[in-house]
Parts: sequence; structure tokens; C-alpha cells
Amino acid sequence: MSGLDETHDPSRTSWVGSANGHPHFPVQNLPLGIFSAQGTGRRVGAAIGDFILDLLTVGSLLDEDWLDDLSHPVLNAWLARGPQDQRALRRRLSDLLSDEQHRDDVEAALLGQSEATMHLPCIVGDYTDFYVGIHHATNVGRQFRPDQPLLPNYKHVPIGYHGRASSVRASGEPVIRPNGQRKPPEAEEPVFGASRRLDYELELGLWIGRGNRLGEPIPIDQADEAIAGYCLLNDWSARDLQAWEYQPLGPFLAKNFLTSVSPWVVTAEALRPFRKAQPPRPAGDPQPLPYLQGGSAEPALDLTIEALISTEQMRARGLPPHRLSHGNASAAMYWTAAQIVAHHTVNGCNLQPGDLIGTGTLSTDSNDGLGSLLEISRGGKQPVTLPTGETRSFLEDGDELTLTARAERKGFVTIGFGECTGEVVGLA
Amino acid sequence: MSGLDETHDPSRTSWVGSANGHPHFPVQNLPLGIFSAQGTGRRVGAAIGDFILDLLTVGSLLDEDWLDDLSHPVLNAWLARGPQDQRALRRRLSDLLSDEQHRDDVEAALLGQSEATMHLPCIVGDYTDFYVGIHHATNVGRQFRPDQPLLPNYKHVPIGYHGRASSVRASGEPVIRPNGQRKPPEAEEPVFGASRRLDYELELGLWIGRGNRLGEPIPIDQADEAIAGYCLLNDWSARDLQAWEYQPLGPFLAKNFLTSVSPWVVTAEALRPFRKAQPPRPAGDPQPLPYLQGGSAEPALDLTIEALISTEQMRARGLPPHRLSHGNASAAMYWTAAQIVAHHTVNGCNLQPGDLIGTGTLSTDSNDGLGSLLEISRGGKQPVTLPTGETRSFLEDGDELTLTARAERKGFVTIGFGECTGEVVGLA
Repeated sequence: MSGLDETHDPSRTSWVGSANGHPHFPVQNLPLGIFSAQGTGRRVGAAIGDFILDLLTVGSLLDEDWLDDLSHPVLNAWLARGPQDQRALRRRLSDLLSDEQHRDDVEAALLGQSEATMHLPCIVGDYTDFYVGIHHATNVGRQFRPDQPLLPNYKHVPIGYHGRASSVRASGEPVIRPNGQRKPPEAEEPVFGASRRLDYELELGLWIGRGNRLGEPIPIDQADEAIAGYCLLNDWSARDLQAWEYQPLGPFLAKNFLTSVSPWVVTAEALRPFRKAQPPRPAGDPQPLPYLQGGSAEPALDLTIEALISTEQMRARGLPPHRLSHGNASAAMYWTAAQIVAHHTVNGCNLQPGDLIGTGTLSTDSNDGLGSLLEISRGGKQPVTLPTGETRSFLEDGDELTLTARAERKGFVTIGFGECTGEVVGLA
Repeated sequence: MSGLDETHDPSRTSWVGSANGHPHFPVQNLPLGIFSAQGTGRRVGAAIGDFILDLLTVGSLLDEDWLDDLSHPVLNAWLARGPQDQRALRRRLSDLLSDEQHRDDVEAALLGQSEATMHLPCIVGDYTDFYVGIHHATNVGRQFRPDQPLLPNYKHVPIGYHGRASSVRASGEPVIRPNGQRKPPEAEEPVFGASRRLDYELELGLWIGRGNRLGEPIPIDQADEAIAGYCLLNDWSARDLQAWEYQPLGPFLAKNFLTSVSPWVVTAEALRPFRKAQPPRPAGDPQPLPYLQGGSAEPALDLTIEALISTEQMRARGLPPHRLSHGNASAAMYWTAAQIVAHHTVNGCNLQPGDLIGTGTLSTDSNDGLGSLLEISRGGKQPVTLPTGETRSFLEDGDELTLTARAERKGFVTIGFGECTGEVVGLA
């Protein structure tokens, strides 16, 4: 495991008490985000325990050269600077939050997370969603195309498509149940109305850092450097709209009413201890084409990802959220993040700082690792039963769906992604 | 034909001599665009004859309230103001360019188009491409799915998908032949290399003006007001990449290496005299669902669109470009621009000022009205012969492809869209 430094040292603690042992934000994490609080506009912050460190307020303790790009109300300009500056800022923040030397000044720049509102970390120029979860692709393919669940291109091409950037929102945005056309199987003609098969999709998001110029692909051995950080991503989906509209050009209104992301950019640097080799391809699978081979020997991430549901009834009865699924992200991913970036740009397509790329739904091959209700309920045929006795084939109004992720490895401090959550709201 | 005013008066002429009888830019057009010239940054201009009127330079002659939004290097803020201000600016420019009253001041703000570089008129937040050309959909569908050229949803759903915003460029951008995976029909495995089936697509583009908030659809009777203007759009396509990658999520690398648009925003107001009723649906076709019915009685546009090719050999021999196709846009469109906007937002998806929407390839039902080489050459089986004796199934390096459009109607002055052009460049 190369490139580890004192910021990853598991013995390092912070003088911010809540950080030590924090499930998401110990001093080994230090994700970046955009927050606002009463009386402030949007500002760049780093999460530490239950607090946010306001970076501009401690600007005099940072490299002067960084301040212009850290003074925007979004992270695009900062992430565009590339990995060297990301690493340097991380080191500096880690020192400031563990050493006592500047404690008074730094403590004055802390704000409780409960007092802040988190925003989308970047202006998303483009949002692309991939489909690298092979078990998801197989499970869904079986429902849409029983005769051929996995298409012949799947093991050669990291399949992806363009999503809608304007409707990407930070965690917490209400999920307004979309209207649209659906065609019930028994009907001759489509009908119009609110979706009856509203679903979530458990995904990781990649935030692009430096990007590339039009016409200049990012080779796979440079692809990791283009990824500034990661988040959770919920690709809310209206399955009934999707089934009717998606041929031949792919999903459109079934997806573009909302995409939610967790607000903290967990940096590639913070995730370095959790990198590992990509699981080998099953025997008999084709080798990737040369442009998709090579790069880091540890391109995968050891991440546990979870989806939880909380219904109105559960909340009224004081019950905790119910876990719908949990699994390891890498076990779900047939293609790595680096392969995604190399493929996306191989034709010359330009990625820009702050672009968002979703992995696609990450389901494992286990029944408790399915990343959508479409899979869990077998297309609605086997509803899941919740602790209240309620059942769910798809999401109902008032349901709150939460995604979470953590990176854990023996000998290192566990770090988390925070949450990506949204509550379904019926049409007025 | 409602809403015509003195700006549409065919007897109105400009004191800019080249405007009178100009094939694109008489005083009845006045499209807006972003230009730069030696020593200037990007600025808002209006085309008049062979010239560009620099709007900020005549700022003292315009409504003071407009100047902030006209001083950006892109049109997004100006288009966001909605149709009333578009109309008022048009009236003012028309008066300034036809009356002699302020001629000296206005003349000093003119710049030759040959001295300027045109840029993308807006920052494109999102680019969506539709598929409303029913003859194109049928022709292409026949090649990809001979058994079912037009899918069952086509006459119910205005099919669309998200494109790549970062690679939208103004006319003139070189078309770098993209690399990618393709699977020759006889091969067991895909191969990697430069596309051998590079194509153009003749489309119209819609520039969004005011837009809508997330969760608040634009009803069809307000949809026309959301469209600030129109342009030509070439959705460059690598057919061999597309055939291999497009299942199940739609085209991706086959399209996102470049999309070109003509640089002038021809305003909805300028096109008002050329509006007409939508041709009736063929007998037996289903009625649109209610959210796609209503709105303007004249939702279609009387536009003649053309595609022309010029090869290196043709240019070396001094031959003019060869017309590959020409036809009427409305005759090609199964769904109107207003239906496109109503459908795109019906699920709550938000359009933003400066968003770009393509119609999809506009082929007529005639052999001389096919909007792509894929259709003209019948998938490569029947190459077209050019005046030099050269043949083309798809585009070759050095080919220059130009789209153009004009609106003409008896009793009115013809206006044009200018050109959307690009030359194919081989990989280095």
C-alpha cells in the first residue's frame, strides 16, 4: 500500500473529542464539503467529528496560494488543482486538528454540523451513470429481458450513459414522486399518472478533479489521479416509467427527476489505506481490451455500503431504520473506477472538474446485498416485510431511504461517508 | 398568425446595406450570439447582414435595466429573462438598424463577421437529444432491428436521452475521429481503434430561456415561452461504436466526443411568421396523452434544412459543396418543440436557462431528405457518389460537413440560421 503518510496513522487523534471513535469523521477522514449556516453564505468546510471546520476562517494558517480557490461557494476550482494540492491540504488540516499549537484559532473556526446546512459540493457540469454492478445488471436484465439478462457487450464495455446534471441534489432533498407514462402489461395503451414503482439505487459517486481536454483521453495509468473523491449516490428510479420509455435510447424521465448525493467529498487520499486488488474475473470471462488494462495494482476500494428504510409508521413507533441491504462495493463492481474514467475519455470526451460519475447500482451476489427494491422484491413479486409488519415492493409516500458507507481495514481507523437520504413525498 | 409587429414587416430595410437581401441575416432576423475579436473578450452581439452589432457598445441606446445581463460573456442570464424582454430588445435593435436617427453611434458598434470568432452562445448546463424525426427513427430502426423498426412506445412517448454538455462546441470545431470499441459482424470479440463509420446528424437545437424549478412541470400551453431560440445542431455519431455499446442504456461514446451547433440563436420571435399548424397525424395513429395536447395552434416551424459535404478533393478542384439532403423540418417532426418541453418536464425535471435540446435527426420521407449518411448509404451498402466521382458511405478525414437552414414564407422576408460546420480530422 503506497503513499500512506502520517495522516493515515491510526494512533493519531484529534483534540476535537467527538472525532475520536466517530463512525464517519475521525481525523483520518477530513472530507470536504460546502455548508452554510445562519448569517453565512456557502463556504468550504472539512468534517471533523460532530463539527465542520470553516476553511476560510483558518485561511491564515493555510497556504496563501490555496485561498482563492477555497473561497468559492463550490469545490470545482479547488478539485481542479489535482492530487498534489489535495494531499497537502489534507496534511495541513490533519496537523491543525491534532496538534495543540494553533488550537485556539482553529477551535474558533468550528461549527456544529447540526447548525449547518450542507449543499451540493460542486456545480455538476455533467453527470454520467455507469452500470458496473454486474449482479445488478444480471438481476435487472433478467426482469427486462428474461432470455438474455447480461448482454454480449457487458464484459467488454463498461456500460454507461449520461444522466441529468440539473436535478442532482445534496442529501435531504425531498423525493417528489414523478408523473409519467406507464403501460400496464394488460393494457393496450399507456396511461399517465404518478409512478407506482418508485425505487432507490445504491451507488457510489466519483467526483472528477483535474479532468481532460476534448480530444485528449486519460490513459488508465493516470485515471486514478483524475478522481478527487467519492460520495454516496442514490439514482432514484421510477421503474414503471423506465420500462415503457427506455427503448431504444435508455432511461430518461424515469431517472432525471432527482439524483441525490451525500454532501461530503471523501477524498481519494483518505481512502488510500482501503485500496485493494480488483477481485479476479471469473474463469472464462474475456480479458479487457488493452486501454482498460494496467494502472494501479490496487484499483478497488474496501467499502461496506448499506441501504436503510424508515417508514412513517416506523418513525411514529420510534423504531430505528431497517437495513434493506449491505455488501462490499468492490465485490459488486465488474469494472473499477479507473476503468470507468479511461473508458469515458477514450474517444476524446472531456471530463471537467466537479463532474459526477455514478458507478451504477452495487448489488452483491447475495440476497442481503441487493441495491434496489426492484431486485429485493423480484420486480414487485416478493414484497419485503418490515419490522412493523408493513410490506414494500417499492417506495411509498413518507418512506425515508438512507444510504451509508464505511471503509474499514484491520490496523486502520474506520472512516465513513456520512449519509445520503431522501423522503418520498406524494404529488400535491 | 398572432403577435407579428413592425419587426416582421417585409418592407422594413436596414441602412446596413448587406442586410437587405442577405440570405441569413436581414433586419427581420437579428439573432444573438457571442463573439470575440482582436483585443476583445467574449461579448454579446446581434448579426445584421455581414456585420455584428456589439450590443454593449450601444448600451446607452438600450434599456438600462438590460445591461447587466447583456454584459456577460454568455447569453444564459439574458435568455433567462423570458420572452417579454427578448421581444423588447428585438424591437429596439430593429429600430436602431432601420431608422437613421442613431445611425452614427450604431454604425461605430458594427464589426465585420469575417473579423470575429463566434463562440458557444451559452454555458450548456444540460444537453438533451430527442428522437422526434419519425422517418429517421424508422430508417435507423430498420438497420438495428429489422423486425421492429419503430418501437411500440414511439407514437406515445417523445423519446429523448441525455447527451454530453461538456463536448458541445460552436460551429467550426474540428471533428477528431474517435477511438473506441466496435465489433465487426464476423468477429467473435470486439476490436479497438478509430471509428470507421463516422456520421453526421442533421438536427435543430432549442435554446431554453426561462426554465422551471425542480418538481414544477412546464404545461404544454406555456412550453413555447420556455424556448428562447433555435440553432442547427450536428450530433456527430460513430455508428460502429454505437451499434456495439448502445444496449441497454443508449448511445454514449458514439456521440459524446463532439456535438456542434450554429453560433447564432435565432429567436423564437424572429421565427414567428414561419409558424404553422402541425401536420395531422397519419390515420390510425394514437392521440397524444392530454399533457401533450393543446398549446399553440401553430406549434410547427416552416424551415428548410440542408446538409452539404465538401471533400478535400472537391476543395482542391474548386468545386462547391455538394448537397446531401434537404427537406422541411416540420415534415420530419412527429413531435413539436412544445411537446418536447412539456414531456421533458412532466416528471418535475428542471430545465435551466441556456440548456440545449436537440430534436434528433430530421429526415423526410423522401430519398433526398435523409439527415445522415447511415440512411443515405443504407447502412454503408449503397455509397453516395460525389461530383468528383468519389464515393462516401461515411465521413472520411478531410471531409467538411455543413448544415444550414432557412425560414421562408410568401409575403415575408426569408431569414437563415447561418451555418454549422465541422471538418473531420484523423487521429494523430
